[in-house]
Amino acid sequence: MRMSTLRVALLGCGVVGSEIARQMVEHSDDLAARVGARLELAGIAVRRTGRDRAIPGVDPEIFTTDAAALVARDDVDLVVEVIGGIEPARGLIMAAMERGKSVVTANKALLADDGFALHTAADKHGVDLYYEAAVAGAIPLLRPLRESLAGDHVTRVLGIVNGTTNYILDQMDTHGSGFAEALEEAQALGYAEADPTADIEGYDAAAKAAILAGIAFHSPVSLADVHREGISEVTAADVAGAKAMGAVVKLLAICELAPGGEAVGVRVHPAMIPREHPLAGVRGAYNAVFVEAASAGQLMFYGPGAGGTPTSSAVLGDLVTVARNRVAGVTGPGGSWYADRRVRPMGETVTRYHISLDVDDRPGVLAAVATVFAGHGVSIETVRQRTEVPDGAELVVVTHQAPDEALSATVDELAKLDTVREVMSVKRVEGE
Amino acid sequence: MRMSTLRVALLGCGVVGSEIARQMVEHSDDLAARVGARLELAGIAVRRTGRDRAIPGVDPEIFTTDAAALVARDDVDLVVEVIGGIEPARGLIMAAMERGKSVVTANKALLADDGFALHTAADKHGVDLYYEAAVAGAIPLLRPLRESLAGDHVTRVLGIVNGTTNYILDQMDTHGSGFAEALEEAQALGYAEADPTADIEGYDAAAKAAILAGIAFHSPVSLADVHREGISEVTAADVAGAKAMGAVVKLLAICELAPGGEAVGVRVHPAMIPREHPLAGVRGAYNAVFVEAASAGQLMFYGPGAGGTPTSSAVLGDLVTVARNRVAGVTGPGGSWYADRRVRPMGETVTRYHISLDVDDRPGVLAAVATVFAGHGVSIETVRQRTEVPDGAELVVVTHQAPDEALSATVDELAKLDTVREVMSVKRVEGE
Repeated sequence: MRMSTLRVALLGCGVVGSEIARQMVEHSDDLAARVGARLELAGIAVRRTGRDRAIPGVDPEIFTTDAAALVARDDVDLVVEVIGGIEPARGLIMAAMERGKSVVTANKALLADDGFALHTAADKHGVDLYYEAAVAGAIPLLRPLRESLAGDHVTRVLGIVNGTTNYILDQMDTHGSGFAEALEEAQALGYAEADPTADIEGYDAAAKAAILAGIAFHSPVSLADVHREGISEVTAADVAGAKAMGAVVKLLAICELAPGGEAVGVRVHPAMIPREHPLAGVRGAYNAVFVEAASAGQLMFYGPGAGGTPTSSAVLGDLVTVARNRVAGVTGPGGSWYADRRVRPMGETVTRYHISLDVDDRPGVLAAVATVFAGHGVSIETVRQRTEVPDGAELVVVTHQAPDEALSATVDELAKLDTVREVMSVKRVEGE
Repeated sequence: MRMSTLRVALLGCGVVGSEIARQMVEHSDDLAARVGARLELAGIAVRRTGRDRAIPGVDPEIFTTDAAALVARDDVDLVVEVIGGIEPARGLIMAAMERGKSVVTANKALLADDGFALHTAADKHGVDLYYEAAVAGAIPLLRPLRESLAGDHVTRVLGIVNGTTNYILDQMDTHGSGFAEALEEAQALGYAEADPTADIEGYDAAAKAAILAGIAFHSPVSLADVHREGISEVTAADVAGAKAMGAVVKLLAICELAPGGEAVGVRVHPAMIPREHPLAGVRGAYNAVFVEAASAGQLMFYGPGAGGTPTSSAVLGDLVTVARNRVAGVTGPGGSWYADRRVRPMGETVTRYHISLDVDDRPGVLAAVATVFAGHGVSIETVRQRTEVPDGAELVVVTHQAPDEALSATVDELAKLDTVREVMSVKRVEGE
């Protein structure tokens, strides 16, 4: 039997794209055996062509700066998009799908921004849209959530999905360094970009959280629905304070079903988690995600969250699937939004706070502080008073669970107390 | 649009089967939304019918003792097999597939014994055969290996895939108990069966290893190919010895590609792993599996490895997939054996040994022992001599990497040395 050939347009040829092209050549026979058809690079769209583009086994003639024309070509069956960002990626993907081409992308920003519209277009045109690489790099996560757990009831997804911030927080925890110092080191080592905003302000993690929540809870969730706080305000004192209570500060993405199941909560923020929690042990730029489901219980997925080679593994895994579907003349499970749950505002989220207060060192302070908590219905778990602070005292309060709006209103009122000189730090406590 | 209905025959209604039936009723709407068709229980085959079979929402009339007739019924579209064991499960599955019904099973013994023939039959009859629940309970593992990593090159799968033995070894490590005592406790708590042979002698783990190796390396591997050693010979002294060198004893399933990639090694045996290794921290009856792939790097999958509810999650996830495929008129990726690698004999496996010897306490002993190692080309990493042993000495040798046949020949010769009174323990060292 002569094997048919599927022709692939690769959009983008940076670190990830060139790795994909390289592997498509190197593992050509394996990929063909797994797909049931040969995969051939029809063209590679780049911003600038030039001789530095040489990839062994790839015809230099197939590079082009006209991505739109490449996507429109009749001899292109499948499109792999690794340009990133919203435009021109969105337009190219839409154009590809309109012409009946299945798409594999690693584009988290786009999927988080517009996943619903993209999936709707994929359904309409009868094509596949796969994007495992968009969340947690090489870790198989979206497919297990979408398919392996399709017979279960996912209640929570909680994880470390941004390697840059995890590297920075890990450095702060291990070496006691400050945020600026740790960021500088991460930049020097290539773990953080020159403009680190997307990572350190939590935008990258929030995009991933939106994608995860949408899939886990069968409801449309976009980036705008995600409560987002970054790590740029995390201080060496916060990390030390966490250490003192046997915890570690991590940037968490948390997607959860509200009790009753009618709403979804999606948030990204730094949180203290106990040192015994498996996520506490996730070092450097690794990613790890917990999934809690009614029947399966607690599952954890762990691995490298970024990098050209891991990302290419995820993209090529998707490419094999969409190619195999194309050979069979079918599409895989598309977007699933039937539950259509509302997104709960952050204020309704039930969590715990760890609050450090710089207070006057005199009788009655604790009573005043406790009164504020009681007034908002927030129950205190522990209070620790450190009087060795020069000219005053430090009060560290850890609360029981309460709605975020009550906790946050408590903090606002504490800040106004005469006896409270400064609210030094407020961190949520998770993972218990 | 009126939704079509797919009718499901459930074979077996023990812990797992009754949980599946219960959830099919309880989550009927969710499952329908995910499949695109309603799933309906057509019949449940049991050994004995009776009123103790009552499952809320399930018509008692659909229970039958005639599994063969149920499978043959024209109004059955899909078959779920949770009887376990080789026969009658094999015959029923074959009959179902011959009649064009897709099958979901949790049957590791059968798949390990005869996976190739079963997949061949599935392909021939154009049906699906899915069995995520057969390995590591609820942990999505087979699907990620088969699909998510389809664009990558898996080099190693290493994990804890039997909860019973992990519970026993964990008890021995935590409380210093002996094997018999820990087994008895596991039995009392329901973690081990009255006849614990399949678990403690490694048959269960070996079946899972065969399945994992076949999928990971695209080659037929059956139970008979797996080198298997159980944990019944693991003593409190072994566990203490491991502790002394900062390690812990775990029953590991290891599937690896030989250097060069032309052969596959598959083995199950107790091994010492460093306490810092993530698998060392897997407690109780949990399972965890490392997957190493050329591009993805090291991935870990962790979760409950057994139990009715977790297993039902995996079965129902597969059921959604095969049902959805049936609606679309297609089948998913079937067995993939194109690489057809040979299985390497255990002797060729490269590993390390930890050997405890009871020796005479006199000069020249170490020289004699070292000569034996050298004669087999086995390089020693560390030797520790404990002379506080009454009337003699204990010599603990940890080797560098060497082929298992050289290591095992070394041990045989050591046992014959005049100065060696007893070879007290031999354990492989892995995970470094």
